[in-house]
Amino acid sequence: MKIRVYYEDTDAGGIVYHTNYIKYCERARSERFFSQGHRPLEGDASGFVVHHISADFLAPAFLGEMLEVTSRVLALKRSSVILEQDIHRGSVKIFSMEITLAYLSESKVRRIPDSILALLDIEGAF
Amino acid sequence: MKIRVYYEDTDAGGIVYHTNYIKYCERARSERFFSQGHRPLEGDASGFVVHHISADFLAPAFLGEMLEVTSRVLALKRSSVILEQDIHRGSVKIFSMEITLAYLSESKVRRIPDSILALLDIEGAF
Amino acid sequence: MKIRVYYEDTDAGGIVYHTNYIKYCERARSERFFSQGHRPLEGDASGFVVHHISADFLAPAFLGEMLEVTSRVLALKRSSVILEQDIHRGSVKIFSMEITLAYLSESKVRRIPDSILALLDIEGAF
Amino acid sequence: MKIRVYYEDTDAGGIVYHTNYIKYCERARSERFFSQGHRPLEGDASGFVVHHISADFLAPAFLGEMLEVTSRVLALKRSSVILEQDIHRGSVKIFSMEITLAYLSESKVRRIPDSILALLDIEGAF
Repeated sequence: MKIRVYYEDTDAGGIVYHTNYIKYCERARSERFFSQGHRPLEGDASGFVVHHISADFLAPAFLGEMLEVTSRVLALKRSSVILEQDIHRGSVKIFSMEITLAYLSESKVRRIPDSILALLDIEGAF
Repeated sequence: MKIRVYYEDTDAGGIVYHTNYIKYCERARSERFFSQGHRPLEGDASGFVVHHISADFLAPAFLGEMLEVTSRVLALKRSSVILEQDIHRGSVKIFSMEITLAYLSESKVRRIPDSILALLDIEGAF
Repeated sequence: MKIRVYYEDTDAGGIVYHTNYIKYCERARSERFFSQGHRPLEGDASGFVVHHISADFLAPAFLGEMLEVTSRVLALKRSSVILEQDIHRGSVKIFSMEITLAYLSESKVRRIPDSILALLDIEGAF
Repeated sequence: MKIRVYYEDTDAGGIVYHTNYIKYCERARSERFFSQGHRPLEGDASGFVVHHISADFLAPAFLGEMLEVTSRVLALKRSSVILEQDIHRGSVKIFSMEITLAYLSESKVRRIPDSILALLDIEGAF
């Protein structure tokens, strides 16, 4: 998934504000679902929540650059999934994150439904 | 209401990103309600929505500055209210906005409840 | 310019937070320049700043929706330009804004350079 | 440092968007410096950048809540510092993060100046 860096993403240091790399990764996860027509229904209280993040900030990104987010499944458990999500500018990796997502329904941890697993494409990268 | 400018509020131009002044004004409106213990209940589909904004950006603000948002009611109608909200840095006005808020319930325009009017303090400024 | 609504763009009311429509319009303006290879140099203190916004919020947008931003020049002056920028979801206009941008260099209002005018495509829409 | 949750901080899931906890921690770090009168000069290319984050999201926060960020130094090296930053709602810890910050000047890792160390209050918490 390609992401352009706009003014809103940068800060007075002239570079992308650190939390925005993590936002870009969330866009890539959501786009995986949205682009397949899956969208949370209003009032539907099930979905993934972020449980843990371990992130390395390897190099800064700048206004106007085009970045690319890649994602792959590292581990799949009954009610959670661990992804590696990287951000590259051209061939240079500038950010890398391991993120653990837990599947909740009505605020309780639940088994990930098969319909969701099908959208996630466990075998491949996205 | 005092608001500090943090890195997240600035952009690569070294100044506060333009939409953030409008965010600061929303914080001041919400704080008016939150500080009096009023908070939207989950699933409650009533509240004010932004209908129109007319905003003048008079001078830039910079990282680390302390700004002040002031608000006053310009006009009150059955189901909407018009506010003037200004932002000052010390004695210098850097932003001024007229904003029209409509009161909705279940996606329909409704009369503003008396309980809400009481919190708004129609006579005074906040 | 197509823009997808992600979680970061929505708020607890279940709709896109009002200032984000204005951010989307800024993305469209910047994309106009970035996609033609124009990017502000570091330390370059010239560019457009937002002077005035008059915005109508016509209908809410929701998580996962694909929106489209259109822009056209309403008026061009020596050192400023007025744009109309609209946001549609399909054929429904949900947001419309008139924005006045002033061209500054070293914090002073300046004549818009011809090189910038060429990128802006005064005659057409973008 | 107390932080109020506003609409801009929440998402359509009705809770605070995950990256905003990390933003709150950055506000607390910056406030440590700003409140002592230290503010980066324009064109000054030295300061801390985020190198690594390991974060646990323990419980959600909701619109209108008042949160508290606490910070303490876990380790201090020549050119970097590791902080633990926690967020509580009342007595409940809802977020905990270890963050490694590197001190850069002119894009190169440098020894942290004594003037900065003095502001950081290595011994205590902030």
